[in-house]
Amino acid sequence: MSESAAIRMAVSTVIFALRPGSDGVPSLWTPFVPRTRDPHLGKWALPGGWLPPAEELETAAARTLAETTGLHPSYLEQLYTFGQLDRSPTGRVISVVYWALVRADEVSAAIPGDNVEWFPADHLPELAFDHNEIVNYALKRLRTKVEYADIAHSFLGETFTISQLRSVHEAVLGHKLDAANFRRSMATSPDLIDTGEVLAGTPHRPPKIFRYKNPKQA
Amino acid sequence: MSESAAIRMAVSTVIFALRPGSDGVPSLWTPFVPRTRDPHLGKWALPGGWLPPAEELETAAARTLAETTGLHPSYLEQLYTFGQLDRSPTGRVISVVYWALVRADEVSAAIPGDNVEWFPADHLPELAFDHNEIVNYALKRLRTKVEYADIAHSFLGETFTISQLRSVHEAVLGHKLDAANFRRSMATSPDLIDTGEVLAGTPHRPPKIFRYKNPKQA
Repeated sequence: MSESAAIRMAVSTVIFALRPGSDGVPSLWTPFVPRTRDPHLGKWALPGGWLPPAEELETAAARTLAETTGLHPSYLEQLYTFGQLDRSPTGRVISVVYWALVRADEVSAAIPGDNVEWFPADHLPELAFDHNEIVNYALKRLRTKVEYADIAHSFLGETFTISQLRSVHEAVLGHKLDAANFRRSMATSPDLIDTGEVLAGTPHRPPKIFRYKNPKQA
Repeated sequence: MSESAAIRMAVSTVIFALRPGSDGVPSLWTPFVPRTRDPHLGKWALPGGWLPPAEELETAAARTLAETTGLHPSYLEQLYTFGQLDRSPTGRVISVVYWALVRADEVSAAIPGDNVEWFPADHLPELAFDHNEIVNYALKRLRTKVEYADIAHSFLGETFTISQLRSVHEAVLGHKLDAANFRRSMATSPDLIDTGEVLAGTPHRPPKIFRYKNPKQA
């Protein structure tokens, strides 16, 4: 067995946030930073950087994310490790990729670096390296996850109306859902709890407010 | 940003197979190989090795697995990347870990290396490095997966009886399930299809044979 001295390690992070588009409908957005050196000078890339030998993987991902986007998600989850031989023209680079879902208020509160720019997740620019593939992999995982996990919490906070929950599912799935069917399937979900409260400031048939029985971090 | 020359990359693989225990009840087993050098000389460890700079991650995992256990699973899935600073006493080692579920007949057909030994997944010996933690993480993922994915296919093949399916779930979960409840919940599963055939050689009320509607690789 030979050791692997010629391999360099990096970390990157995919962030998904819900933001209203020009039509007011919320959709998924994700931040990128421009490459400031070759290879791929000037192309957009995921927030990230080299892994220092004495820094934990998740710490490095959180640090590089904060430096570029100003975001401090409470929890980064490891997504996947991308290590294909040809993914960088400068030799073997293996990237451990983390991801997080953030709420719109977390994005507004962040003080971003100079160059960060947010793009709609389903209309990505041409990204550096294999970053298009990475974001598309993350999107696919997110869309699978919406089927069985409590992802609304990450985007919406503790409590929400069924319409708000539907707008999260629609934004993640990238298409409209039938409102009545959605309401019906959520009404029978054992994981949703009616808080007994209604949305303030909506005098006529105010929407009920729900929460998850066992909120999970997405 | 500094590059990460002082980090070494390794791959390891967690294999789960169903094998009957001394009481005839199938349970999860997983193979280990003894360490032949320091650190942790003589302790049991996951099949694996250093990642050569010019070898794809999954290829290296499959090769080291075949060399030690003789197993050639049709599909290895990436499980997680373990990179904690203190996981090896000889400096920073990051291990990309793969996993696979294999059928008993795949294990019997394999020609193992000299030293491989199989252990019950819930009675592990003290393993080298953080390998106990890695196997326990894999077990946790497998137990979550049995709730929503079609894992029986990986252990049982294309078709199976409800009893066989229950024995898979029991082995994965590590405890008995109520036979009548299990049969009832499977009978209403939209993912299971009655093939119309019955188990041969069982003259009195022969068990029906089922298959998954959309078999997925686990």
